[in-house]
Amino acid sequence: MERITVTLGERSYPITIAAGLFADPASFWPLKAGDMAMLVTNQTLAPLYLDAMRKRLEGAGVVVDQVILPDGEQFKSLAVMDQVFTALLEKPHGRDTTLIALGGGVIGDLTGFAAASYQRGVRFIQVPTTLLAQVDSSVGGKTAVNHPLGKNMIGAFYQPAAVVVDLDCLKTLPSRELSSGLAEVIKYGIILDGEFFSWLEDNLDALLALDGSAMAYCIRRCCELKAEVVAADEHEHGLRALLNLGHTYGHAIEAHMGYGNWLHGEAVSAGMVMAARNAERLGQFDPADTDRIIALLQRAGLPVNGPESMAAEDYLPHMMRDKKVLAGKLRLVLPLAIGKAEVRSGVPHDMVLASIQDCQKP
Amino acid sequence: MERITVTLGERSYPITIAAGLFADPASFWPLKAGDMAMLVTNQTLAPLYLDAMRKRLEGAGVVVDQVILPDGEQFKSLAVMDQVFTALLEKPHGRDTTLIALGGGVIGDLTGFAAASYQRGVRFIQVPTTLLAQVDSSVGGKTAVNHPLGKNMIGAFYQPAAVVVDLDCLKTLPSRELSSGLAEVIKYGIILDGEFFSWLEDNLDALLALDGSAMAYCIRRCCELKAEVVAADEHEHGLRALLNLGHTYGHAIEAHMGYGNWLHGEAVSAGMVMAARNAERLGQFDPADTDRIIALLQRAGLPVNGPESMAAEDYLPHMMRDKKVLAGKLRLVLPLAIGKAEVRSGVPHDMVLASIQDCQKP
Repeated sequence: MERITVTLGERSYPITIAAGLFADPASFWPLKAGDMAMLVTNQTLAPLYLDAMRKRLEGAGVVVDQVILPDGEQFKSLAVMDQVFTALLEKPHGRDTTLIALGGGVIGDLTGFAAASYQRGVRFIQVPTTLLAQVDSSVGGKTAVNHPLGKNMIGAFYQPAAVVVDLDCLKTLPSRELSSGLAEVIKYGIILDGEFFSWLEDNLDALLALDGSAMAYCIRRCCELKAEVVAADEHEHGLRALLNLGHTYGHAIEAHMGYGNWLHGEAVSAGMVMAARNAERLGQFDPADTDRIIALLQRAGLPVNGPESMAAEDYLPHMMRDKKVLAGKLRLVLPLAIGKAEVRSGVPHDMVLASIQDCQKP
Repeated sequence: MERITVTLGERSYPITIAAGLFADPASFWPLKAGDMAMLVTNQTLAPLYLDAMRKRLEGAGVVVDQVILPDGEQFKSLAVMDQVFTALLEKPHGRDTTLIALGGGVIGDLTGFAAASYQRGVRFIQVPTTLLAQVDSSVGGKTAVNHPLGKNMIGAFYQPAAVVVDLDCLKTLPSRELSSGLAEVIKYGIILDGEFFSWLEDNLDALLALDGSAMAYCIRRCCELKAEVVAADEHEHGLRALLNLGHTYGHAIEAHMGYGNWLHGEAVSAGMVMAARNAERLGQFDPADTDRIIALLQRAGLPVNGPESMAAEDYLPHMMRDKKVLAGKLRLVLPLAIGKAEVRSGVPHDMVLASIQDCQKP
């Protein structure tokens, strides 16, 4: 079992990573006998995990209710979040309840924001079931829902009480979702850890084959990197913005194509190549490193070009709604080397467009 | 000009109280030239104040947009709040924008929650235009929207950057709204300050006549009392719950009757009498003091009985969704004397029902 702590004073919390965690009710600390809990999951995961998890928690003396949401990024909305509030109020659950987010990034982000907002804040536990959620979205307290005009535009910084990563979940994950998670994994290598990037080049096949020890190391390293960044800059005043490599372009793809059509990691994958091309055009990034990035993303089964139906001009209105925009100016995360990145403002829009065009199939 | 500080470390902020504040753009500190702002108000207030305020801020170099919402408690919802996000994203406004809540409790609570949630948190300024908002809801950072199953069930603790109270606003306030605000004023006397209660008995006629110096003192004293409570217990772990006197019953009335039919202060007024009757039944409150409370509320034009169409049994399901409920147990704010109150759990439901029946017209 691997255990990492996200260090945030009184709000510090553990991330536990192992196979078979769901079988032990103790994994769901700080839930204890007599507590009430609301399990939030989706229609795909419910038949796989819900009944067993519920029975184990009830066996440990927790009063458990459940709400099952539709599956997909297009359901990460205020209206769907309201279904969680209705389920909580119908029972009713009080301020001392605990929400359990059993699912991927959509369930985690939506349930986290619901926990931040229900009665102005109740406890919640992240139980990420996708690689993407395990390495990224479940850690660090960024919660949100989407708005038709922009992704993750409505939310809160709100930390979970614990993150429970059961590696067995990945066995039921569709391969396209596994690839989507690997996009965020590769991102950590590019922005923060060149050695980890090289490790990924050496071990990608093992990860794709769900090799247990390779996957455990991979998830632990990503969580470590993320935990360090979050501890240093919880509210994204500086360093934390680096975690957004590829996301300004990627959010534009997701919003323009309609939420759920491109997976988040797929859009981020193409966006990271766009960022690399932009950095090349600024003379600050070696084209050979872009080639390494492209090769690794392609091995992971990820797109390295934007959608064919999306013109470069379609990106900009979405990018101008990015949360990093300050005083009306775009700010981009751009790589400096494999393992190092920066936030840069004042990149001319012509160059941004040209970098997007670099990633359009001819 | 009266100025009070709500002391919360780095998040401390001033409350400024005077006539004519709207005429001076400096009142809207910390807004400054070059900033973007979104004025949020309702259809009733827009024709009275919006154009003039907008012009003055634009004259001071602030880039101002506006969103005008329908007027009424029934519009304090997630769906109406989404209109604010749409207005912000259409422009688009960035993380460095400032929301200005120009209105009563509905606009202030909804706009504050929108500010807490937009891009995970932007600055906001409270500009309360009703007595109720000036003495209570604009101060202390409780923001929320309603759910059909419970009032203020979805929200955040999120402090404004400043509160601007222009006494001239009260000249356009309907008398029923003035009375509703006086319910919260009288509440402060009952729970925290017996001398202030006596002052209200002596000065209620002056307040109803909008006497400038009486009103300025009244608002300042209420804000002082609230600021002290909030500084001591921002997240309502203890003391702050006292501010909820009458609200557990009152929220039940508002939810059962349909939001907007009973004004918040009207429902709280009847609820405070129910709490006093309950305290009497527990042998901890002098019936002569209930008579003083009833007399003052009636002079203020407020109801002292519940709605005729609402049976005592109708209250309980709503009351069990109160945010003070812990481990499934109702907790009530009950007076001990004029100027002193406590939070009490374990009151038998039969007694709660009997106290409600004490406040039903025969």
